[in-house]
Amino acid sequence: MEPVISTTLMTPVILSGGSGTRLWPLSRSQRPKQLLALTGERTMLQMTAERCPEGDMFGPAIIVTNALHAEEIARQMLDCPPAAMILEPAGRNTAPAIALAALVAEPEALLLVMPSDHVIEDVPAFHAAIRAAMPLVTDGWLITFGITPDKPETGYGYIRRGDEIAPGVHKVEAFVEKPDTARAAAYLAEGCYNWNGGIFLFRADAFLAALEQFEPAMLASARAALDGAEREGTTIRPEAAAFLACRSESIDYAVMERAERVAVVPVEMGWSDVGSWDALHALGMADDSGNVLHGDVVTIDSSDCLVRSEGPVVTLAGVQDLIVVATRDAVMILPRGSSQDVKKIVEKLKEKGHRTLDIPY
Amino acid sequence: MEPVISTTLMTPVILSGGSGTRLWPLSRSQRPKQLLALTGERTMLQMTAERCPEGDMFGPAIIVTNALHAEEIARQMLDCPPAAMILEPAGRNTAPAIALAALVAEPEALLLVMPSDHVIEDVPAFHAAIRAAMPLVTDGWLITFGITPDKPETGYGYIRRGDEIAPGVHKVEAFVEKPDTARAAAYLAEGCYNWNGGIFLFRADAFLAALEQFEPAMLASARAALDGAEREGTTIRPEAAAFLACRSESIDYAVMERAERVAVVPVEMGWSDVGSWDALHALGMADDSGNVLHGDVVTIDSSDCLVRSEGPVVTLAGVQDLIVVATRDAVMILPRGSSQDVKKIVEKLKEKGHRTLDIPY
Repeated sequence: MEPVISTTLMTPVILSGGSGTRLWPLSRSQRPKQLLALTGERTMLQMTAERCPEGDMFGPAIIVTNALHAEEIARQMLDCPPAAMILEPAGRNTAPAIALAALVAEPEALLLVMPSDHVIEDVPAFHAAIRAAMPLVTDGWLITFGITPDKPETGYGYIRRGDEIAPGVHKVEAFVEKPDTARAAAYLAEGCYNWNGGIFLFRADAFLAALEQFEPAMLASARAALDGAEREGTTIRPEAAAFLACRSESIDYAVMERAERVAVVPVEMGWSDVGSWDALHALGMADDSGNVLHGDVVTIDSSDCLVRSEGPVVTLAGVQDLIVVATRDAVMILPRGSSQDVKKIVEKLKEKGHRTLDIPY
Repeated sequence: MEPVISTTLMTPVILSGGSGTRLWPLSRSQRPKQLLALTGERTMLQMTAERCPEGDMFGPAIIVTNALHAEEIARQMLDCPPAAMILEPAGRNTAPAIALAALVAEPEALLLVMPSDHVIEDVPAFHAAIRAAMPLVTDGWLITFGITPDKPETGYGYIRRGDEIAPGVHKVEAFVEKPDTARAAAYLAEGCYNWNGGIFLFRADAFLAALEQFEPAMLASARAALDGAEREGTTIRPEAAAFLACRSESIDYAVMERAERVAVVPVEMGWSDVGSWDALHALGMADDSGNVLHGDVVTIDSSDCLVRSEGPVVTLAGVQDLIVVATRDAVMILPRGSSQDVKKIVEKLKEKGHRTLDIPY
């Protein structure tokens, strides 16, 4: 294995493994959220890449993705081709994916690991947080970025901050599971918690050393998968059997919660994981009636709705607080505030073996 | 003009001139309500024709329709081909349409004039009402069928019954305009009113004599249109300029409200003009949650909705009392009880010159 990445710049590692159905009927197994233009004209993946443009601060990215989406990702990344595109035969959660990226990079490479489907509105704040982390990163610490919470969210893990060990950087006292509403409110009130946004920064060798310590079998499997990989240009196809032998595990459980030198940089940067249609309503530009509309939509006497069409004309008259999403082959309607029920809908469609779950609209 | 219709049987005259948009997005200018299968597998037109099957009571029908729909109507009537299909170059309301049919029929023909887009659930009751009317019809009276009202409907004209002049047949005391809610409630309470369902029975010559008396110019124009008609098999295309010279007028205004010998047969026959999506909810078979569903629909924790899909899967979770109608190119959502707002939607789409108003889905 020859290392392919320079150490003079940070290397964005973009994780595009998600196959989320929380944004059905737009997201499909063959066209997950990160490949959709949900908040503007560019896709979530493109906006993630553009947040870390090649230049003084960042080198070209490593993308780790499900092999299913390779072609579409290559198409979307034409403007900023990655240094490597690692194609997983199937998802094994974030720890094995990051292991592949760390093994492909040079040992001293600075890896900025990011989900491919988040929104960050204040990019300068993000970059400032990265810079704040640098002294500790070069010293071998594993850094996570902690989102400043603004509501008692129960859908995220939390990070309890310890002492400030460098300007703007705190030792992590504990990673905390997704709380119930009461506990989430307490965390918010206490003021020393951040949301775990799933964005990490570390040297490749520091991460690999921790993985060696806590998940040696996973590291060995990832190494074997790369030893047997097929390579074509910048595309790397790890050997399937070896990679699939990796335990499916998140970086949080596998490494971050167990390692010693783990720090958090709290940051307020207009972050959203765009995890639901309700989140998209909050992110969108509302009209005078509180409606966030996208596509061919006609509203009459309707307010506070999120309506999105990818084709058919959608008309609403006299309704409030609805989420309506329409494609040529599917229409989803639910009240605002209950967009977690998309899961129930998708489950029911799965039971029926409904085709709209898979094929792109 | 040679008469084409026998006088030994009644001749159904089916008026298919409607281009209603009250059932958008299903009804379109090129595929109006009567050409749709709304309440079962057969279209409204087919069900209208099948209500008066050729046999002891009825001969073949005369259909008067907009020329636009000729091909589709011929297709739908393959099983019971009409004696004549009269193609209007454009609609001139019911009086000129019925004039054409009466002129094409023999003078003594018994014309049973019916809209093509109504539901009658109790056909034996309808036939019994027709039989009750026969003595007066043969004697030259103009008969209308009065629907027994079961709610203070403001969308229909009313008929005030006078004396019973034959068993089950009353002289019409007055035709009454669509009332406001208070007046409609009073009519319902008074008990001597029926809805004007737009179904008529008379001898062709009796109708033409009345038309000669009250609308001589209209009759002359209709006659001229037929004199100059193109005929091909049973298809008759009246000469356009002559027909378009007819004043656009309903049979009610042109004849029924002005003629002397006009009688009404009150009848309770499960009638509906299917004039709105709310009417279709009332006509449909509801599930245990009060939902009336048609097509590929998935509901979760939803009740009392009308959901109809002509293609896309439509999913609802946690909503109540919604009307949702979806085709591949249009989705309409409004609360139950406000389906008259379809008009507002259609108006707004017209302003935009939206294509979904015209082309069939």
